[in-house]
Amino acid sequence: MLDIVFLGTGASVPSRSRNLSSIWMHYSGEEGESFLMDCGEGTQRQLMSAKLNFMRIERIFITHWHADHWAGLIGLIQTMNLEKRKKPLHIYGPEAERFVSNILELGYWAPRFSVIPVDCLFEGDEITSLYRTNEFEVLSTPANHSVPSVIYCFRERDKVNVDIQKAQLYGLKQGRLVGQLKNKGQIMIKGKKIRLEDVALVKLGLKVVYTGDTKSCPNLEAISKEADLLIHDSTFESEDETIMHSGAKQAAELARKVNAKNLILTHFSRRYQDVSSLEEEARKIFPQAISARDFMRITIKQGVFKVFR
Amino acid sequence: MLDIVFLGTGASVPSRSRNLSSIWMHYSGEEGESFLMDCGEGTQRQLMSAKLNFMRIERIFITHWHADHWAGLIGLIQTMNLEKRKKPLHIYGPEAERFVSNILELGYWAPRFSVIPVDCLFEGDEITSLYRTNEFEVLSTPANHSVPSVIYCFRERDKVNVDIQKAQLYGLKQGRLVGQLKNKGQIMIKGKKIRLEDVALVKLGLKVVYTGDTKSCPNLEAISKEADLLIHDSTFESEDETIMHSGAKQAAELARKVNAKNLILTHFSRRYQDVSSLEEEARKIFPQAISARDFMRITIKQGVFKVFR
Repeated sequence: MLDIVFLGTGASVPSRSRNLSSIWMHYSGEEGESFLMDCGEGTQRQLMSAKLNFMRIERIFITHWHADHWAGLIGLIQTMNLEKRKKPLHIYGPEAERFVSNILELGYWAPRFSVIPVDCLFEGDEITSLYRTNEFEVLSTPANHSVPSVIYCFRERDKVNVDIQKAQLYGLKQGRLVGQLKNKGQIMIKGKKIRLEDVALVKLGLKVVYTGDTKSCPNLEAISKEADLLIHDSTFESEDETIMHSGAKQAAELARKVNAKNLILTHFSRRYQDVSSLEEEARKIFPQAISARDFMRITIKQGVFKVFR
Repeated sequence: MLDIVFLGTGASVPSRSRNLSSIWMHYSGEEGESFLMDCGEGTQRQLMSAKLNFMRIERIFITHWHADHWAGLIGLIQTMNLEKRKKPLHIYGPEAERFVSNILELGYWAPRFSVIPVDCLFEGDEITSLYRTNEFEVLSTPANHSVPSVIYCFRERDKVNVDIQKAQLYGLKQGRLVGQLKNKGQIMIKGKKIRLEDVALVKLGLKVVYTGDTKSCPNLEAISKEADLLIHDSTFESEDETIMHSGAKQAAELARKVNAKNLILTHFSRRYQDVSSLEEEARKIFPQAISARDFMRITIKQGVFKVFR
């Protein structure tokens, strides 16, 4: 099960009802793992208000280094230190090494646990695998924003159950060939193409994409294909109103184009006290669109998507 | 009139009910002026929740560079920039030049207004005047904490109304001599000591001291004498429980010793969900002691002290 809590859904400047960007995610697999996507100012307090265990956060994925997406790192790291954290904390982001070391050299503090920066923007690489377990991986791809910025994708591994009898009927008697088929999705045997679906039950893994701040771009489209959930920058109603952000309209167009199952709009400009106009704009194109609010919780379990507002 | 709003009254780590250290003050004199004492993470949102005009803040006084006292600077400066601030912002603190320039070099942001750091910890100087207007000044003195740290004092100028006829009776016929008397408090004329009180009505200016984080120390005692309001570190019940903080008991002892009119305890450890035991501890020694809470407002007008809880 993937559990998601929106900790901050406002853009650039907080308001009384919306804190700055951060999303907590927890994957309950063989070993549960918690991580954050972005960490705007005030994130530690939002975590406390949501009664989430911030000490269990293993990894923080920063989309870019505008302060509304990262300034909460300082307080959160200081608190983890005061709480006597021992295990390392990985912080991913474009130019993470430079920024994380600048942050750690800032004031009178030196965490007694390791803070490990991981750069995640590589020239020429369209989609990069950043972190893998036996159950899921986290990928990134460059976004289109005013500063170096990435889009993140949480991707559960597909579950493949090979029917041994069927496989033997197709002439796949060796384990090595089955392994190749699992990896490549199809293989040729004696001039005949065998597809994985022919001999196995494939249950696609869950896919959740978080855009961070970005204008529409081909990378976003490529990484979002068939996403179970697309969490999309929706600073304004339309992209036309800004230079380097998306609007609700573009978010919905993308969700429709990539055949996403669900769309959540977030990162709303403080100009909207009520974001229903943005939600309506998106629903004209993608009827399942919903707007995030702080502390909204989503669970996705065995393909069932639930929203707790 | 001096108007004070507590924006954060928790120590080190925020809680659901207490944000990190920051106090907003506004002096309504000939020209109104707003400033902050400390600026912990989340201060900009607390300012918004309290409906205070953060754009009017002219100066920020940081007691020391532990993150719970300054990490809100980043977001606040970014927001002031987005709101198109033009006028400079002065940031005072020990080693302010080093820390403010580190902060400004952190990420992808360059404020389009001047951020002017002012160092305020000078070796050998016991009390330093940092900023003066015709109506008040702000002073600092070194604190006793684990890192370089200062105590701040807001000091309204005394109002001196010289009775010209009385002055002439004492032989003070020249304006220059009256000026000297105002500055020095007493002068000698023909071997006779004349005190300011002999020829003038002196209305003492308001004095408010904010300790930041500190253990009891002689500097704190010196700067706090006869304070109208002492806002005191009260992390625990007693100083014995910690190394470099004060307890409610020490705060009350100091308030009594320096003959302060009012005492407000703040900077409470998260171990206290309810701080009434600290308030009671202090009241045994200084009966007027009260404990701060977030958004508590104090006004001091013509000597009348009012608390809006």
